[in-house]
Amino acid sequence: MASGLVLPRPVTFVTGNAKKLEEVRAILGNSIPFQSLKLDLPELQGEPEDISKEKASLAAIQVNGPVLVEDTCLCFNALKGLPGPYIKWFLQKIGHEGLNNLLMAYEDKSGYALCAFSFSLGPNAEPITFLGRTPGKIVPPRGPNDFGWDPIFQPDGYEQTYAEMPKEEKNNISHRSKALALVKSHFTEVGYTFQIDPSV
Amino acid sequence: MASGLVLPRPVTFVTGNAKKLEEVRAILGNSIPFQSLKLDLPELQGEPEDISKEKASLAAIQVNGPVLVEDTCLCFNALKGLPGPYIKWFLQKIGHEGLNNLLMAYEDKSGYALCAFSFSLGPNAEPITFLGRTPGKIVPPRGPNDFGWDPIFQPDGYEQTYAEMPKEEKNNISHRSKALALVKSHFTEVGYTFQIDPSV
Repeated sequence: MASGLVLPRPVTFVTGNAKKLEEVRAILGNSIPFQSLKLDLPELQGEPEDISKEKASLAAIQVNGPVLVEDTCLCFNALKGLPGPYIKWFLQKIGHEGLNNLLMAYEDKSGYALCAFSFSLGPNAEPITFLGRTPGKIVPPRGPNDFGWDPIFQPDGYEQTYAEMPKEEKNNISHRSKALALVKSHFTEVGYTFQIDPSV
Repeated sequence: MASGLVLPRPVTFVTGNAKKLEEVRAILGNSIPFQSLKLDLPELQGEPEDISKEKASLAAIQVNGPVLVEDTCLCFNALKGLPGPYIKWFLQKIGHEGLNNLLMAYEDKSGYALCAFSFSLGPNAEPITFLGRTPGKIVPPRGPNDFGWDPIFQPDGYEQTYAEMPKEEKNNISHRSKALALVKSHFTEVGYTFQIDPSV
C-alpha cells in the first residue's frame, strides 16, 4: 500500500439509469469502491470520446471529487457511425422499427455498440477515457424490451440479440464490460487507494 | 426615445458561418445594430428550443453583454422531427444522398426547416426564443451545393429547392427569415436603444 494515489473518497458513478448501474455493479464487483449519483448534466453533441470527457469534467466540478461517467452509442456502419451518441433520441422518437427502417436503403446492416467511460480525479483534472466496442448487426427486435436498444442488436458470432442473452453472457462480451475492463486495469495499474468513511 | 430599455452596446450575433451571417444581414438590414463573433460554445443535445436557450445563456456569460444565437434544424416528419438538431452531423457524415436514404422506408417525405434564435440581455438574464418554421419536403439534391442541406429541401408551394431559389426569394419564405421577423418585432415592441460607440 506504499505506492499509489490516495483519493479522499469513493468514486461517484454518475447515472440515473438503474439498469446501467446494475450492469456496472455486476461487472465491477468490489474492485473499485463507488457510489452512484444522478446528476442533471448537459449532454453535448460531437464525437463520442469528446462528449464523454466533457461530461466527466462537468461532473467532477459538481461532485468536487473523483467521478466516473458513462455514455453509450449505437453506431450503424452504413450511416458512418450515426445515430451514435444520438441513439437515445432516435430510440425515444422512432423506436426499434424506426431504427431498422433507417437502414432500409442499405444491404449493410452492420454496426457496433460503443461504450465510453471517462474518469476524472476531480475539478481541473484531465479526464481519461476508456472505450469498449462490440461489433454486430441491427436486426428486427427480438427478446425482452426492458433495456433500450438491446432487442435490435445482435453481436457478431451469436444467434441471440443482447436482449435475448442471459445477463452473464451479455456482460462477458458487451461494449460496457469491455470499457469497464479497461477502467479496472487502469485502477490496478495506478493503484489508487481510497479513504473510505466506514459510516457511509 | 423616452421609453425602452437601454443596452450598453450592440447585440453580438454569435456565428462562425459566413453564409448565415450574410442571410441575417440581408434580412435585418439596419433594424438592429449588431456585430458578429465566432465563439467556441458547446452544442447540446435535446429539444431545439432548449438547446437554443442554453446556448444563449452560455454566450451571454462569455460576451458579458447582449447576445443573439441561432440554431437550425432539418426535421423529417416520418422520423418524428429527427435528425432535427443533429442535422449537421448527418449532413457531414452521410451527405445529401444519405439523408434521402433515411426516408427510403417511408412514403412520407415531408418535413420542415426550423430556425431558433435566442436573445439574452446578458449573464443571468433569461433568454427569449423565437422560432421560425418552413414546411416542405426532402428531395434528391438540386441546385448549387454551397450552403448545407439547401439542395435537398423544397419548400411547400414551390417547384425549386432552397438552393435553386434566388436569395431574395428564399429570404422571403425561409425558416430563418420567419424567426428573424419575430426577433425584429420583439425589438420594436420593447424599444431597446443602444449606446453605440461610434469608433467601433
